[in-house]
Amino acid sequence: MKFELAATCPRTGARAGIIETAHGAVPTPAFMPVGTQASVKALTPQDVVGLGAHMVLGNTYHLYLRPGIEIIRSLGGLHRFMSWPLPILTDSGGYQVFSLSHLRKVNDDGVLFRSHLDGSEHFITPELVVEYQEALGADIIMPLDECPPFTDDRRVVQEAVDRTSRWAERCLKARSRPDQALYGIVQGGGFMELRRSSADAITSMGFDGFALGGLSLGEPKEVTYAIVEEVAQLLPSDRPRYLMGMGSPEDLVAGVSRGIDLFDSALPTRIARNGGIFTRHGRKIIRNSEYRSRDVPLDDDCDCYTCLNFSAAYLNHLFRAKELLAYRLATMHNLRFVLRLMSEIRQSIIDGEFPALRDRMLADYRPTDEAVRLSQRVRSNKWSGPPPDSEG
Amino acid sequence: MKFELAATCPRTGARAGIIETAHGAVPTPAFMPVGTQASVKALTPQDVVGLGAHMVLGNTYHLYLRPGIEIIRSLGGLHRFMSWPLPILTDSGGYQVFSLSHLRKVNDDGVLFRSHLDGSEHFITPELVVEYQEALGADIIMPLDECPPFTDDRRVVQEAVDRTSRWAERCLKARSRPDQALYGIVQGGGFMELRRSSADAITSMGFDGFALGGLSLGEPKEVTYAIVEEVAQLLPSDRPRYLMGMGSPEDLVAGVSRGIDLFDSALPTRIARNGGIFTRHGRKIIRNSEYRSRDVPLDDDCDCYTCLNFSAAYLNHLFRAKELLAYRLATMHNLRFVLRLMSEIRQSIIDGEFPALRDRMLADYRPTDEAVRLSQRVRSNKWSGPPPDSEG
Repeated sequence: MKFELAATCPRTGARAGIIETAHGAVPTPAFMPVGTQASVKALTPQDVVGLGAHMVLGNTYHLYLRPGIEIIRSLGGLHRFMSWPLPILTDSGGYQVFSLSHLRKVNDDGVLFRSHLDGSEHFITPELVVEYQEALGADIIMPLDECPPFTDDRRVVQEAVDRTSRWAERCLKARSRPDQALYGIVQGGGFMELRRSSADAITSMGFDGFALGGLSLGEPKEVTYAIVEEVAQLLPSDRPRYLMGMGSPEDLVAGVSRGIDLFDSALPTRIARNGGIFTRHGRKIIRNSEYRSRDVPLDDDCDCYTCLNFSAAYLNHLFRAKELLAYRLATMHNLRFVLRLMSEIRQSIIDGEFPALRDRMLADYRPTDEAVRLSQRVRSNKWSGPPPDSEG
Repeated sequence: MKFELAATCPRTGARAGIIETAHGAVPTPAFMPVGTQASVKALTPQDVVGLGAHMVLGNTYHLYLRPGIEIIRSLGGLHRFMSWPLPILTDSGGYQVFSLSHLRKVNDDGVLFRSHLDGSEHFITPELVVEYQEALGADIIMPLDECPPFTDDRRVVQEAVDRTSRWAERCLKARSRPDQALYGIVQGGGFMELRRSSADAITSMGFDGFALGGLSLGEPKEVTYAIVEEVAQLLPSDRPRYLMGMGSPEDLVAGVSRGIDLFDSALPTRIARNGGIFTRHGRKIIRNSEYRSRDVPLDDDCDCYTCLNFSAAYLNHLFRAKELLAYRLATMHNLRFVLRLMSEIRQSIIDGEFPALRDRMLADYRPTDEAVRLSQRVRSNKWSGPPPDSEG
């Protein structure tokens, strides 16, 4: 597990680097498309590679429940199961257990929960989560963490931070595959002091990289960014820094500006399936009637298959007619948008021009209205919107 | 509009030929994937070309209702709208008006109907149907026909046949684009005498090719095949013969054996989206638990992207998890299966070995049980099954 920095922006601290894994190199900063259930929704692995992704994320929680760890192990691991040739990172399931499952009982040993699929009861521990991820065989794996809602009070969050640290130690002890990297997760909700003590504890252990968890859960953006800024500075500069669950264009720029190397988020693909299209100027809603006969690409600046071959009017039609192709073409565009953004950001860091690119991007890009964003966040937690399947 | 026969099987009358169109040549016998709403469900044009299709079908009825003929015309026609580079055949909408729409009133002038989408009222005539198809710009277009249910009595079917003939004349008179072929449609329900008189009337007009309509609407297969056999012999041998709405593997072989050149059907793609997988030995239901950990391709004889890259277990998982990729991978496989079958059939006709191929295929292939087939037919007419969108 090698991580090398190629350049650091002297004004912002933005970093360009390379993470080496058993399945190849990941140039950073990098965005990972989300392949929750062993599939980046609506796309083939060939599509995802073609869009410029270097690593995808899989979710241990979802894969554990369906099809089951043993099936994937017996079929040769997650790479082979989903026919994905490049690196994979698996999330531990901590976040999903605390956000999706029912009837959770947490104690120091582990978490008892009921499946959101069929109500069946399951008990996971830090050791089991490592065992499952070793069976899946991802290149980067994550420890079990406790991810409390942002609204919990200080005492509850403090307990979650302490338990996350104890579980982190147990995960490090349980690992047995030297070909996988294990990253530690910093928690602490919205309490800066707890964030600092969590970072202190987690960075004192032997992790190969460090993640910021429990963010973008409904709190205002300024709070998120302030925490990212504070915590990123406390992380060792020679290890990758991973901001979990964030991936809007403005979040990617903001995260990189604060020294983050890795991102994942279901947002680009989820909003694509709802007809939300990224452009340099902000999000378009392609179902809107203004696009019914618009004979231009979704985004005239884009080099994706969708933009090179189809008009906005055709996409408008596909969404209105609920054609399956709509979800795929929109997903390809949004992923290409963020992957290309990351690649341009990386080049600008190497060229010493990142601050100019950031300023230009933020000047052009009108982020989605905060109220809309929060309402969509809530919607997505309820798994509404077509198609009715979750990525989170 | 040239049609040339390359070979005819002396024992069966099966024909290998080429239809020339403004967008290229179509080697026959040919199966047309169905792109009802300007999209072959779940696939890009690139996919469909890659699978070996030479022509697709679009539905005037659906496109007229959504997005509307004028929008497609203003965007440069159907080829450009859906970014499809090869030939297109558009159905006239006759079948859809009689099977999907509500509150139909038919008189000699035309048909008054209500949209199945929003209940809005529309009136179409033979002339309008030609006008719409000239605006869409397909390479082969079809006249308005009256397609009565198989259960109607002789008198009603006789009237439909007569009206279909009068409308056929009017369509021929209304056409103005010499770059499009116009095919006549033989109707007549299950009455052999009416089929013969319909064939007699339609072949006496100046059509570029001839279609058999109103079949595979719930009647037993033996009846269908007997009608195909009888009618095909009455059609001029120097024009293409098109069997509308039939495309199961056994139907394709049976149709070719009776001298048919062109086929279309939503069946291969629709059953794919329900997890029904074609193999040499018959249909597999990939959701069945026997495939949960089966580490083999869907069909070990297949050269499609799905079979080359994924296990049956992975497809089983995608269907159970309702992943969008399931519909696409299964659709690719089933289309490749029928397109490859057609290409093998064509070669065998040229090589003088069609009867042997037919016998081998029919010996290996266990068709779906007649009761299951009819029940699925009814289901499909009700548009049930995921995803809930129609192709017919």
